[in-house]
Amino acid sequence: MSTRVLLTGASGFIGSAVLKVLSKDPEIEVHAVGRSKPNKLPTGTAWTSLDLMSFSDVRDFVSALRPSHLLHSAWIATHGDYWSSPNNLDWVGASLNLLRAFQSGKGQRILIVGTSAEYDWSRPLSDENNTPICPKGLYGVSKNALREILASYCLQTEMSWAWARLFCVYGPGEPPEKLLPKYVNRLLNNESVAFSGGHELRDFLHVTDAGSALAAVLKSPLSGPVNIASGQAVSIRQFVREIAEQIGRSNNLVFENDTSRAPGELSSVVPCVSKLRNGTGWLPNWNLTEGIATACHSLLNARNI
Amino acid sequence: MSTRVLLTGASGFIGSAVLKVLSKDPEIEVHAVGRSKPNKLPTGTAWTSLDLMSFSDVRDFVSALRPSHLLHSAWIATHGDYWSSPNNLDWVGASLNLLRAFQSGKGQRILIVGTSAEYDWSRPLSDENNTPICPKGLYGVSKNALREILASYCLQTEMSWAWARLFCVYGPGEPPEKLLPKYVNRLLNNESVAFSGGHELRDFLHVTDAGSALAAVLKSPLSGPVNIASGQAVSIRQFVREIAEQIGRSNNLVFENDTSRAPGELSSVVPCVSKLRNGTGWLPNWNLTEGIATACHSLLNARNI
Repeated sequence: MSTRVLLTGASGFIGSAVLKVLSKDPEIEVHAVGRSKPNKLPTGTAWTSLDLMSFSDVRDFVSALRPSHLLHSAWIATHGDYWSSPNNLDWVGASLNLLRAFQSGKGQRILIVGTSAEYDWSRPLSDENNTPICPKGLYGVSKNALREILASYCLQTEMSWAWARLFCVYGPGEPPEKLLPKYVNRLLNNESVAFSGGHELRDFLHVTDAGSALAAVLKSPLSGPVNIASGQAVSIRQFVREIAEQIGRSNNLVFENDTSRAPGELSSVVPCVSKLRNGTGWLPNWNLTEGIATACHSLLNARNI
Repeated sequence: MSTRVLLTGASGFIGSAVLKVLSKDPEIEVHAVGRSKPNKLPTGTAWTSLDLMSFSDVRDFVSALRPSHLLHSAWIATHGDYWSSPNNLDWVGASLNLLRAFQSGKGQRILIVGTSAEYDWSRPLSDENNTPICPKGLYGVSKNALREILASYCLQTEMSWAWARLFCVYGPGEPPEKLLPKYVNRLLNNESVAFSGGHELRDFLHVTDAGSALAAVLKSPLSGPVNIASGQAVSIRQFVREIAEQIGRSNNLVFENDTSRAPGELSSVVPCVSKLRNGTGWLPNWNLTEGIATACHSLLNARNI
């Protein structure tokens, strides 16, 4: 039986990284969909422009394609807006419509992109088996609700499913408001940047590694939630320091000597990666220094055009 | 500000009972919708045939009506099928579409019909504040997921919301496969019926009382989940005995002397009704004897036509 993958959100930050990996896999026939065709696609990609909000179009498309695997990475992702946007409700509905269409076409395995925001962040470790769920924001709540329905639906339809919880993904192509591009641009503009707080740990994963990890989970028999992360937590301060050093602007960055957290700031969020590693053998290709280098390089190139 | 209620599922078992109550309330202007118009409607009811699966029709209708209140009782309710039907996924999507339309039209208060199947039934009492959630079946999971999204959505939109958890509702108009009509019909057919098990407690609520309780919660400021129940738990055995007595067929009913539960049979499910009573002052109108009498009367009439 051949592996025919339907990949949604294929023009997005995460989706396009997955597409690159899947399109190189000789065992996989990948069909990428998104609202509008990107300028650059991996050679030989089968692309279809499809709006997941057009329910009957989705049903028609999936029923004709009959994919064996579904990797659903599409969702509202507008920075600053996705957290509380009412569009989260539409994305739950569109995802459920997609699930039913996939099941009707005899689909076998589903991987959907979830979020670290499903976890109780007050815990020292985010572990799939033991950390309590406490979804935050309309975004976290909507993703979590979709996961609950997915689990119950798959239980009775005998489809296999996994749920990829992403943490901090960075790299070329991320929105300019995010941590890395924001600091690169401020520092390159010769602003003197005061950095306060940031003592908490985060797991930063290069987007190319996120893509290969998702592809690995899709191909594995792993079931249920799976953390997608590097396994190397560093402080936000350390991440920003590395950025400043790489672009030669360490002198512009002033770390304030505060030790307390700003109100509303999160505690450390450290994912356990045993399930991912033991279940797939996957390991990241990039360490933080190399990963930040590619991201900075891409931003520098963009500024010089 | 007038109270303009949009009532969905208005031709259903529960919805039509609510409609009767709301249509008599001088402070309320009720707009009933359902897929097809029922033969009998309370005098002066404003009815619109509307398929909630037609998302754009729903948005157009709600945007023109601009109701202040939403009582959403529509859902798949086919006996024996609703528990695991994939249509549950469609109903989540349709409900989310309805919520967004209602909010866009400046709606203020939402009451949605939930289910006792959201509770962990292994607990002696189902209490809104203290009993853990453990939704069962694709039905229970889907309703519960909708509730989680509703709570988060209302938090940021400042709409008020309540969630009516129904337990065992019986009475005229219930599907023939349910406990009361099933036993009435078997006993009236002069079958000798052996009844085993049924020692567990249930809270049976007459459908007319369910209608008045839902209307009371809608008009109240109660927030979050609210159990809708009589407050009088009886054993299933006692309920069936009452049925047999009322139709004069006690001799046809043989209670087997077993004390153990059949595998898969539920333990007692006893709802706490303090929140409902303290928050609305509502009390049931019917005791079990009177309630069963009206239900049996209606079934006897139907057989004699």
